[in-house]
Amino acid sequence: MSDSNRPKRRVIVLGAGFGGLEVCKNLKDPRYEVTLVDRQNHHLFQPLLYQVATCGLSAPEIAQPVREIFAKQKNVRTVMDEVRGIDAEKKQVKLRLHTLEYDYLVIALGAVTSYFGNDQWAKFAPGLKSLDDATRIRRELLLAFERAETEENEAERERLMTIVVVGGGPTGVEMAGAIVELARHVLAENFRDIDPAKAKVILVEAAPEVLGMFPGDLPNYTREKLTEMGVDVRTSTMVEDITATTVKLKDGEEIHAANVIWGAGVQANPLAKSLGTPQSRGGRLEVKPDLSLPGYPSVFAIGDIVDCTDANGVSVPGVSPGAIQMGQHVAKVIETAEHHLDRGEADMADHLRPKFVYWDKGMMATIGRSAAVASAGKLRMKGFIAWLAWLFVHIIFLVGFRNRAVVLFQWLYSYTNYKRGARIVTGMDERTAKRENLDTEESS
Amino acid sequence: MSDSNRPKRRVIVLGAGFGGLEVCKNLKDPRYEVTLVDRQNHHLFQPLLYQVATCGLSAPEIAQPVREIFAKQKNVRTVMDEVRGIDAEKKQVKLRLHTLEYDYLVIALGAVTSYFGNDQWAKFAPGLKSLDDATRIRRELLLAFERAETEENEAERERLMTIVVVGGGPTGVEMAGAIVELARHVLAENFRDIDPAKAKVILVEAAPEVLGMFPGDLPNYTREKLTEMGVDVRTSTMVEDITATTVKLKDGEEIHAANVIWGAGVQANPLAKSLGTPQSRGGRLEVKPDLSLPGYPSVFAIGDIVDCTDANGVSVPGVSPGAIQMGQHVAKVIETAEHHLDRGEADMADHLRPKFVYWDKGMMATIGRSAAVASAGKLRMKGFIAWLAWLFVHIIFLVGFRNRAVVLFQWLYSYTNYKRGARIVTGMDERTAKRENLDTEESS
Repeated sequence: MSDSNRPKRRVIVLGAGFGGLEVCKNLKDPRYEVTLVDRQNHHLFQPLLYQVATCGLSAPEIAQPVREIFAKQKNVRTVMDEVRGIDAEKKQVKLRLHTLEYDYLVIALGAVTSYFGNDQWAKFAPGLKSLDDATRIRRELLLAFERAETEENEAERERLMTIVVVGGGPTGVEMAGAIVELARHVLAENFRDIDPAKAKVILVEAAPEVLGMFPGDLPNYTREKLTEMGVDVRTSTMVEDITATTVKLKDGEEIHAANVIWGAGVQANPLAKSLGTPQSRGGRLEVKPDLSLPGYPSVFAIGDIVDCTDANGVSVPGVSPGAIQMGQHVAKVIETAEHHLDRGEADMADHLRPKFVYWDKGMMATIGRSAAVASAGKLRMKGFIAWLAWLFVHIIFLVGFRNRAVVLFQWLYSYTNYKRGARIVTGMDERTAKRENLDTEESS
Repeated sequence: MSDSNRPKRRVIVLGAGFGGLEVCKNLKDPRYEVTLVDRQNHHLFQPLLYQVATCGLSAPEIAQPVREIFAKQKNVRTVMDEVRGIDAEKKQVKLRLHTLEYDYLVIALGAVTSYFGNDQWAKFAPGLKSLDDATRIRRELLLAFERAETEENEAERERLMTIVVVGGGPTGVEMAGAIVELARHVLAENFRDIDPAKAKVILVEAAPEVLGMFPGDLPNYTREKLTEMGVDVRTSTMVEDITATTVKLKDGEEIHAANVIWGAGVQANPLAKSLGTPQSRGGRLEVKPDLSLPGYPSVFAIGDIVDCTDANGVSVPGVSPGAIQMGQHVAKVIETAEHHLDRGEADMADHLRPKFVYWDKGMMATIGRSAAVASAGKLRMKGFIAWLAWLFVHIIFLVGFRNRAVVLFQWLYSYTNYKRGARIVTGMDERTAKRENLDTEESS
């Protein structure tokens, strides 16, 4: 291919998540000048983010510098910057510091936490999308126990030891399970005046089941297992309001809680509206069967930012295998289009473009120590065997050898002695500043 | 002892550094109700902080939760709070949230970065005392290379790739060495438009030598080794002023640098003045031979907050073995005093109190990969053998088995393949906020 006399093709990929990385990895031919743009300098292994929030892993263990990933693939250039806008007429991407031009654009900007129109809840109920979110949650969880230890007012002590997790999907289940284990086992012997094992962990889910997307008895098993671990599972329960001290439920009950964690929903990155193409639920971009945006054959969108039904009519879930497969597909569409152009065919007609087909590898969620659920096709697993499968899959897919080995070591350590290695509070200065702002707002 | 009918003795220890921990560990008898107060929830292994700042280790790897350290020593209570004042007449310590009463008080609050009266330099030239300092330095170092990669103005690109380390003591030498290795080896293949190996690392020291406290040819060896590694070592060089963009030297030269790191000096924690007892250089507390404060026989001060000359006239350096030995000594003084009280002797006269004697275990500093200097008594080591000794000592003394194993693994990994595991930027939101404040200030 590269012996063609046609000029190099500039491919811009926005977002270094699972989808974005995959596009770059699959465009190895030096004819492609690939520019990968991300706000952060690292690729984040999001499925393990809850472990950073609950002291199991340290932040660098689930992140890998993007530059390092592509150190040897010389046709990939990394730019750490924020996307400010896309001009599809001029084929330009405006960043905070620069403007870049493209022949092909891949939008892989992912999702952000959604409060379903209640953005004022964000400061009281952080979501879990970035390392900074995770270290914030870790800090606030640990601080609440610290405050409880010296608190003399019983009601306030109880509030400090109450944690509400909103949302019974995988994130909520994983968070609730990891928090109750943190309190009951990891912190257990460490305090003198409080018993962390008495902390209340309440999981609130609007639907009648947790992990409702899992088949058969897996949702039921998950509920039973969580309850056995000490989580107060409240299904068919809706949140009415969240304030600095309280979660108010639709049924009128008020739960006083120092920590509220939001795992109830995500929406497409707001940049999805840049091109003015159709958006569906949660602002997700509608895409054509080849994953290009309607009306823009050289612009593609992949991963959590899209609402995609594949060529077989299967709705692609917002999980990493979906993003990875979409990334591979877009690379293939670009290569096919270039192949046609090489042969002098002006452009590739719609019907010639490969259509995306999703290969459902199944899904899994961990509940706690030795307990997980998994399903793939007709196969269903739960308990220890599912947990081993979860461990295996996550270790295999962790980017980079070092992380794999360190994470495995950390897990063996935690598993054998019920300790967690990252139980430290950082960012106190930042927190103090924010808290003082909060106090001012509350009193005003 | 504990069969005495006398009431329990309340011992308050301020600060969970090396000295503070040691006091608690050596007062195991349940007659002592020990309260350990620290602003942070973790003990920090400060000698390895420079490795967090330079991407070698992640923050939790050099920190251990204080509560975990004393989980099994039930007579130790941990309070995470800030000290606001000490009332020696009422024998009270005022914290932000509570007031505590003591029979014995041990002040082990350590040192803070000193700018020798130029506190306005602090925001441009961070010191290295806490995990937040270290992650801030890591972030700013990595961001400067990211900015340089897309910067078109050559002078600005050069500024972004210039790092000034002020102070040629162990901290400055370790930082300069680790930064130049980060640029030359770790980042080397990762960029497309800049060559990180061309980064300028300048070490500025006012004295005629770096590591001037080391004997024989070790200062000279250190200078040669640093130079060989690519550090521009400027001795007999004083800093006149530091601004957001520039370090101005006394000889008139201006160095434009995006990163300035302050390793030039520390002073006693400002709380040292709480009791109004005599202070010497850098605000350090003067102590009596038993380490009590003059006029306050039940108040002791240990570690970096004191200026101590031991019973043999040896000035105790501000290193961890000094703090540890002082901590052990204070525990012994308290036990001896209690022994006298048990026998009905009203109080222990000055001349009966054991006097502190420092056992100098020597000192060591690492320069870079396979290069360090060490001296102990007449023994002097340099190069690879000193580096092995440094590795061994630091691994042995790292608190907690897990950290030791993970850190050793990280080091083996970095050593064998020139990569570093913690090369990630975190706290961008906080940074943006600060930067915007800075921009405003600069333009006003």
